Amino acid sequence: MNIGASLSILLVLSTVHAFQYNQLAQYVDEHQEEYVEALRDWVAVESDSSNVLRRPELHRMMEMVAQKLQQMGGAVESVDVGDQELPDRQTLALPKVVTARFGSDPNKHTLCVYGHVDVQPAKLEDGWATEPFNLTEINGNLYGRGASDNKAPVLAWMHAVEAYQKLSMALPVNVKFIIEGMEETGSNGLEAMILAQKDTFFSDVDYIVVSDCGWLSRRPAITYGTRGNCYFLAEVHGPKQDLHSGVYGGTVIEPMIDLIGILGESSASQHQKKPLCLFFSLAEHNKTIINFIKQRTSIVCPFFTVLKVDLLAHKWRYPTVSIHGIEGAFSDPGTKTVIPSKVCAKFSIRQVPNMDPTVVEKKVSDHLHSVFSKRQSPNTLKVSMVIGAKPWLADIHHPLFEAGKAAIKRVFSVDPDFIREGGTIPISRTFQDVTGKSIIMLPIGGFDDGLHSQNEKMSRYNYIEGTKLFIAFLNELSQITEAAV
Amino acid sequence: MNIGASLSILLVLSTVHAFQYNQLAQYVDEHQEEYVEALRDWVAVESDSSNVLRRPELHRMMEMVAQKLQQMGGAVESVDVGDQELPDRQTLALPKVVTARFGSDPNKHTLCVYGHVDVQPAKLEDGWATEPFNLTEINGNLYGRGASDNKAPVLAWMHAVEAYQKLSMALPVNVKFIIEGMEETGSNGLEAMILAQKDTFFSDVDYIVVSDCGWLSRRPAITYGTRGNCYFLAEVHGPKQDLHSGVYGGTVIEPMIDLIGILGESSASQHQKKPLCLFFSLAEHNKTIINFIKQRTSIVCPFFTVLKVDLLAHKWRYPTVSIHGIEGAFSDPGTKTVIPSKVCAKFSIRQVPNMDPTVVEKKVSDHLHSVFSKRQSPNTLKVSMVIGAKPWLADIHHPLFEAGKAAIKRVFSVDPDFIREGGTIPISRTFQDVTGKSIIMLPIGGFDDGLHSQNEKMSRYNYIEGTKLFIAFLNELSQITEAAV
Repeated sequence: MNIGASLSILLVLSTVHAFQYNQLAQYVDEHQEEYVEALRDWVAVESDSSNVLRRPELHRMMEMVAQKLQQMGGAVESVDVGDQELPDRQTLALPKVVTARFGSDPNKHTLCVYGHVDVQPAKLEDGWATEPFNLTEINGNLYGRGASDNKAPVLAWMHAVEAYQKLSMALPVNVKFIIEGMEETGSNGLEAMILAQKDTFFSDVDYIVVSDCGWLSRRPAITYGTRGNCYFLAEVHGPKQDLHSGVYGGTVIEPMIDLIGILGESSASQHQKKPLCLFFSLAEHNKTIINFIKQRTSIVCPFFTVLKVDLLAHKWRYPTVSIHGIEGAFSDPGTKTVIPSKVCAKFSIRQVPNMDPTVVEKKVSDHLHSVFSKRQSPNTLKVSMVIGAKPWLADIHHPLFEAGKAAIKRVFSVDPDFIREGGTIPISRTFQDVTGKSIIMLPIGGFDDGLHSQNEKMSRYNYIEGTKLFIAFLNELSQITEAAV
Repeated sequence: MNIGASLSILLVLSTVHAFQYNQLAQYVDEHQEEYVEALRDWVAVESDSSNVLRRPELHRMMEMVAQKLQQMGGAVESVDVGDQELPDRQTLALPKVVTARFGSDPNKHTLCVYGHVDVQPAKLEDGWATEPFNLTEINGNLYGRGASDNKAPVLAWMHAVEAYQKLSMALPVNVKFIIEGMEETGSNGLEAMILAQKDTFFSDVDYIVVSDCGWLSRRPAITYGTRGNCYFLAEVHGPKQDLHSGVYGGTVIEPMIDLIGILGESSASQHQKKPLCLFFSLAEHNKTIINFIKQRTSIVCPFFTVLKVDLLAHKWRYPTVSIHGIEGAFSDPGTKTVIPSKVCAKFSIRQVPNMDPTVVEKKVSDHLHSVFSKRQSPNTLKVSMVIGAKPWLADIHHPLFEAGKAAIKRVFSVDPDFIREGGTIPISRTFQDVTGKSIIMLPIGGFDDGLHSQNEKMSRYNYIEGTKLFIAFLNELSQITEAAV
């Protein structure tokens, strides 16, 4: 877009397309029941990308996304991104990536909205108060797996575009959508697709917005950085089959004891200052921080940092390791007395800027193999990194962030928190590296939405006001001048 | 029984009741299809005593046992042994203990047959080649959960008694049955019941036989000792709910890392000779032993003892620890990124003579709490021993063992292996302590039956020849003179 074009847009905006925010906001308020029903339909689809048995549901979810965008009059494509290779060497079709375009006015900026509609696993027996795939409203909160992460935000973007359409107002910017179904397991296939479409779909994109995160408090936020994630499987393989622990106990080296031994040695507690601790860099535990966090998150859990600045640093700036669980061992209620023959630990390390997943993969694998070899166990260890997502960090002085700030000010009458995210939106870094475009994260999820855990929810307030925020953001974007960028 | 009575028995045996083994054995051979069908009916009942959701099935199983004994004309009682207290303080009715009596001739010895009809958990997806609760015959083996442990042996004892009845031969000894449904979880309720019936049901019992174990090789065996079992839960409780590992990772002390840390420190590898290793006393690993075990068990697994005598000592004479699994953590396929809020490790320590479960409970709990307290974690640890079963050791010079040896010689034409058992039959020790009666273990299960693991089976050969063995044993028992005991 040249300077002449920019000037003509500014002229247009100040006359024909004067922003009628109140009218749009009223439209949103009047249609909120319809929006909740749309979310209910989407949450009902168990689009768990980590469970291969749910893959048909995931395909169906992508079709529903394409259908919705088509109904809105978008130019929609369902892009085949190939197959996923499973650990057992079998292959499985990846869910298609859905792209759409609304408007192609060369005199307008073009925003690309990224979102995902796959979800984390969830079962009622994990401790949900309601059926996780049946959206249930309690006290203004809409409970359901994927409600906040990321189905409601994706829908809110669609509602925002649709509001302009229904009120016969021209979109202030061209809007493109790119919606995927593998985010929760590392956006398999998406990077290659972005590379392939760098000079086609992305050629006219000016900005990319991601709304796959949450606020830090009750104050709206703009996110300028995320941690990456390297997800590992450490598998110890021993006897050919599970064995009776009475009959064989004492005569076999148990894979479970090997696995727990190497994990125990690799993840020290906060009071162990030994250099063998590969993962942790921890401050002293102090109860004062619990009160701070209680105010901020309403979740009581044991924190170990002392100061607010430390706490936020540990959430956003430092790496961390979590051990999620062990597959293959006895995990049901009851007292089975078996020696499991093959056990697989799952753990992940959150990445921060200047960490390279390839290096992390080698270091972790070398470390575990080194600890394992000292045991001189006859069992075998296999370490594999199944997700390797890079961290992302943006410049908050970019006009894109000014636009976000202005939009928040209009809808919520406050200045936003400028925050980073401890979680991972793998594709943000890829967008930045491949397309060279500017990226902003504009969350609408609440600080207490319970992403990835039991009783995930999206509040009706955040869903509806978030839709208005996106409407306002589209307008603010249109006022960015070429000179400012 | 006085000397006069004994002499009159000897007289009777040598004339009217001359033992017609061949006729009885032929009867058994002719009815083997019927026996397999009976086993099929029993295996079809998922009588898993460790899973409270299967309790109705367990009650139904006990009713089937009572019904069978009634059909055989026994004096049957279903004894209420009270309630089980669950970890959440709720109570659940224990399965009734079924007792029965066949014959009450004061001039004959009285044998009490103990068995159990509850089973370990089993699911097809654990790696079973056939549906675990659908008895399936392949190459002469009858595959199904509980087939060998302990449903077929219990049925074989019933078939043995029934064979005498059907051929109108007097039973050489009075036979009593005591069949329970909580063996796999520590025979909850049975000890109190035995104590209560010490002077009633058990008053005229001379000998107790248990057939809840297996041979060491293809040669029939008599078992004279078992290890006990102390089963522990170690639960670490942290945040109120599961947390997203990206959002909260680095700011909470994760219960899973605490748990793995304390378990890792408490179970050293075989090459760590440190005294902190509470559980292990291990010899060097050597591959030669693998060949020995391959011949003996056809299961290839990593063994670490050098000599045959060491191997058997590690199976029978030394304690061992097994870590079975972790409840509460992520155990499914896939890559969930969650920090579990509450995780519960399950491990068990096999007991040997002179170990006292009460002492073991205190030592394990103290040790884990001591290791845990060094971590200065804000999480909480709870250690509980949910099974505390004592070991048992008998005198192989007792005439009861001579009777077993003679019966084996008659049916199989070989001398038995005299063996001990690495597994636990908790009640054998209780029988000995409470009733003061002599106990023998007369197994009919094969060495490769896969108790507690996938593809458990009972061979048709062992089931049918085992029935004949019990028939012969009843006769041998009747010939024990008072003087010999």
